[in-house]
Amino acid sequence: MSVTAASGFRAAGVTAGLKPSGKPDLALVVNDGPEHVGAAVFTSNRVEAAPVTWSRQVVTDGRVDAVVLNSGGANACTGAQGFLDTHRTAELVAEAAGVSAGDVVVCSTGLIGELLPMDRIENGVTQVSGAVSADGGADAAEAIMTTDTVAKECEGIGSGYVVGGMAKGAGMLAPSLATMLVVVTTDAVLTSEQADEALRTATRLSFDRIDSDGCQSTNDTVLLMASGASGVAPETGEFTSILTEVCQDLALQLITDAEGAAHDIEIVVNGAANINDGLEVARAIARNNLFKCAVFGGDPNWGRVLAAVGTTKAAFDARTLDVAINGVMVCRDGGVGDDRSGVDLSNREVKVEVFLKAGEESVTIFTNDLTHDYVHENSAYST
Amino acid sequence: MSVTAASGFRAAGVTAGLKPSGKPDLALVVNDGPEHVGAAVFTSNRVEAAPVTWSRQVVTDGRVDAVVLNSGGANACTGAQGFLDTHRTAELVAEAAGVSAGDVVVCSTGLIGELLPMDRIENGVTQVSGAVSADGGADAAEAIMTTDTVAKECEGIGSGYVVGGMAKGAGMLAPSLATMLVVVTTDAVLTSEQADEALRTATRLSFDRIDSDGCQSTNDTVLLMASGASGVAPETGEFTSILTEVCQDLALQLITDAEGAAHDIEIVVNGAANINDGLEVARAIARNNLFKCAVFGGDPNWGRVLAAVGTTKAAFDARTLDVAINGVMVCRDGGVGDDRSGVDLSNREVKVEVFLKAGEESVTIFTNDLTHDYVHENSAYST
Repeated sequence: MSVTAASGFRAAGVTAGLKPSGKPDLALVVNDGPEHVGAAVFTSNRVEAAPVTWSRQVVTDGRVDAVVLNSGGANACTGAQGFLDTHRTAELVAEAAGVSAGDVVVCSTGLIGELLPMDRIENGVTQVSGAVSADGGADAAEAIMTTDTVAKECEGIGSGYVVGGMAKGAGMLAPSLATMLVVVTTDAVLTSEQADEALRTATRLSFDRIDSDGCQSTNDTVLLMASGASGVAPETGEFTSILTEVCQDLALQLITDAEGAAHDIEIVVNGAANINDGLEVARAIARNNLFKCAVFGGDPNWGRVLAAVGTTKAAFDARTLDVAINGVMVCRDGGVGDDRSGVDLSNREVKVEVFLKAGEESVTIFTNDLTHDYVHENSAYST
Repeated sequence: MSVTAASGFRAAGVTAGLKPSGKPDLALVVNDGPEHVGAAVFTSNRVEAAPVTWSRQVVTDGRVDAVVLNSGGANACTGAQGFLDTHRTAELVAEAAGVSAGDVVVCSTGLIGELLPMDRIENGVTQVSGAVSADGGADAAEAIMTTDTVAKECEGIGSGYVVGGMAKGAGMLAPSLATMLVVVTTDAVLTSEQADEALRTATRLSFDRIDSDGCQSTNDTVLLMASGASGVAPETGEFTSILTEVCQDLALQLITDAEGAAHDIEIVVNGAANINDGLEVARAIARNNLFKCAVFGGDPNWGRVLAAVGTTKAAFDARTLDVAINGVMVCRDGGVGDDRSGVDLSNREVKVEVFLKAGEESVTIFTNDLTHDYVHENSAYST
C-alpha cells in the first residue's frame, strides 16, 4: 500500500508542531531512483498558493527527487514571504536528502492566509529526513491529513511493476481538482512524457469526476513519481489504465470521507450527446444544494434533479427525461413516474441515473449530500 | 402598497384548500383598464412548469387582463395533463372575469411533480373572482406565500402615477430569476414595448442580482401590468427608474426572508474591467458554500473569498486583490491585511467588498449564509 509500495521510494511522517492537535503534520517521500521522473497536475484556481507556484516550476523539466508535504497551514495568500518560505523548505529538504532544491516538490494544506512557522518546519524537515524508510508510506499518509477521518492509500499491480498512492482531502472536492494532495509512486520505467500523459488522463477520469461541494482549492496537487527500480518499461496504455484505477480508488476514498457527508451520491448521466454534455448535467446536479439537502433528508426529490438539469445547455428534451433514484424510475418523460415511496435512501450509497436520450455517452460524477455536519464543520473550521 | 396601490386594479386572496396548512393559497389580480398592457420575464430553466409555458404565450401580444396565482403546488414536471390544468385554470378565470383566456397569466408555486387538485382550483377561482376588490392587494400577497415568513409588498410613486408590487420566494433565489413570483402593477399609460423594455431593465438590476443558493426554479415569473387609469404617460426612463426601485425593494425583501438564512450578505465587487466580470466574481462568492458557512459561523474567512474569486475568468492579478469585510480590509494585495479579529459579524447585515483593480465598474449581488436551518428546511420540505 501507499507511496512506498513501489521499489525505490522511502517515506516518513512526523510531528513538526504545525497542528495545534499535536498530530503528525509533515511528510516526505524520496525517490531513490535509479530514475527520477516526475509529473504533476495542479489546481486551476488563479489564486494559487506559494507551494503550487513553486512546484509548477519544479516539474517542468520532468524530474522530481522528493516531495515534502505539510498539513497545518496552506501557505496560500501569504505573498512574497510565503513563496520564500516554500523555497526555503525545498532547500532544507534538498540539503538533507542530497538533491537539488529545484527537484523538490512542496505541498501545503490547512488554513489560508497564515505564514508557516518556519522554525518548526526546519526542525521537522531534519526529523522527517532522518526518518524516511521503505515502509514509511503509512506514516506519510497520516501526516498529510487535515479534516480527513482516515488516511487514504491505494496500490495497483502492473506486469512487473507497482503503482502506489496516498491522498488527503475531505472537503472542497471539485472538478479541476480540490483541497486535495495526492502522491502516486511507481517503480515502472517511464519517460517524463509518458508520466505526464498518463497522469493527465488518470486525473481527468478520477479526481476531476468527484465534486463534493463545488469549491476549488488554492493548493491542489497530484504528483506522480517514477523510480524505474523495477526495470520494467510498460506500454503507456497499460500503465495509464492501472494508474487510473489507483486514482479512481483514491478519489472514491476522498468522497467517502468528505466533510460532514451522510450519503455518497453516484450521479450517472446516460444518453448524453457527448461527454461534455454529460459532465455539465452531472455537475449541475452535484452542485444543487436543494437536491443535496433532499438526499440528506431521505427525500427522493426528482423534481430538484430535473430543475438542475434544466439549467444546463446540454442536448435534451425536457418532455422525455427519465430519472431513476436507487433503481426506481421516479420520473418518466419529464413527469411523475413510479411511486417514489419505493425509494430506499437509508443506506449511505445513493445512485441517481438521468436518461437524456440525446446520444450514446455515459458519464459518472460522485458527490455528497449537504448536511448539518457540513455546515458545522465549515463554519467552525478556523475558529 | 401592493398590487392594488395603482388605480384600475382589483385583487383578492382566498383559501382554495391547496395547502395542507389551510392557509390562503389562491390569488387573483384583475386589470380593469382602461388599458390592459402586460409584459413578463420568465425562468430560463429549460425544465419549465406548465404555467410558464402557458403564460409565455399569453404575453406575446402585449395584453394581459388578469393573473391568477396559486401556492400549494408548482404544476411543474406534470406533463400534458399539467398543461391542460393550467389552460383550464385560465378559462375558469376568464369566464368569471369576462375576459379572454388568452389574456390570463397563470402562476404556480409549491412542490414539483404533483398534479393540482382541479376541483379545488375550480371552487377557489369562483371564490376569488367574487372577492376581488380595490383594497385586496394584501390578501393576494399573503395567498402566494410558500415558505415565506412574511408577505412582500412595495409601492413607488411617479409623477402622477403609481407602481405597486408583490412578491413571493424564500429559497432558490438565483440569477435568471428564482422560485419567485412577482406581480407589479401601474396605472401609468404605457405601450407594450415600453412595458417590456422597462421590465427587462428593472429585472436585470434587481431580481437578477440576488442569489440565495444558486438554484433556479422551474416557475419563476415577473409580470408587469399597466392599466393606464392615471391618464399619465411617463417618459420611459423615469418609469424604468421607479419600476427598478420597486423591484429592488422586493428583491431585498426576498433575500431578507430567504429560507433558513441568518445573515444577509451584500457582495460588492469594485474595480471590475466590465459589468460581466463583476457579476461573475460576485456570483462565484455568492455560491461558495464554504464562504457561506464561514459567515454563518461568524468567521471573516477572506481566504475563501479569494479562493472563490480565483475560480473566475475575470480580469485581475491575484497579487493585488484587496478584500474588506464589514469595513475591515482583512486582505491586502492578495495576502494578510488588517487584523481579522476587528470584524464584527454579529449583525444580520454583512458587507463583503472585493477590489479587483482592473477597471472602473462596480457590481453588487445580495446573498445569504449557509446555515443549519437552510439544510433543515430543504431536507424536510416535501416530507
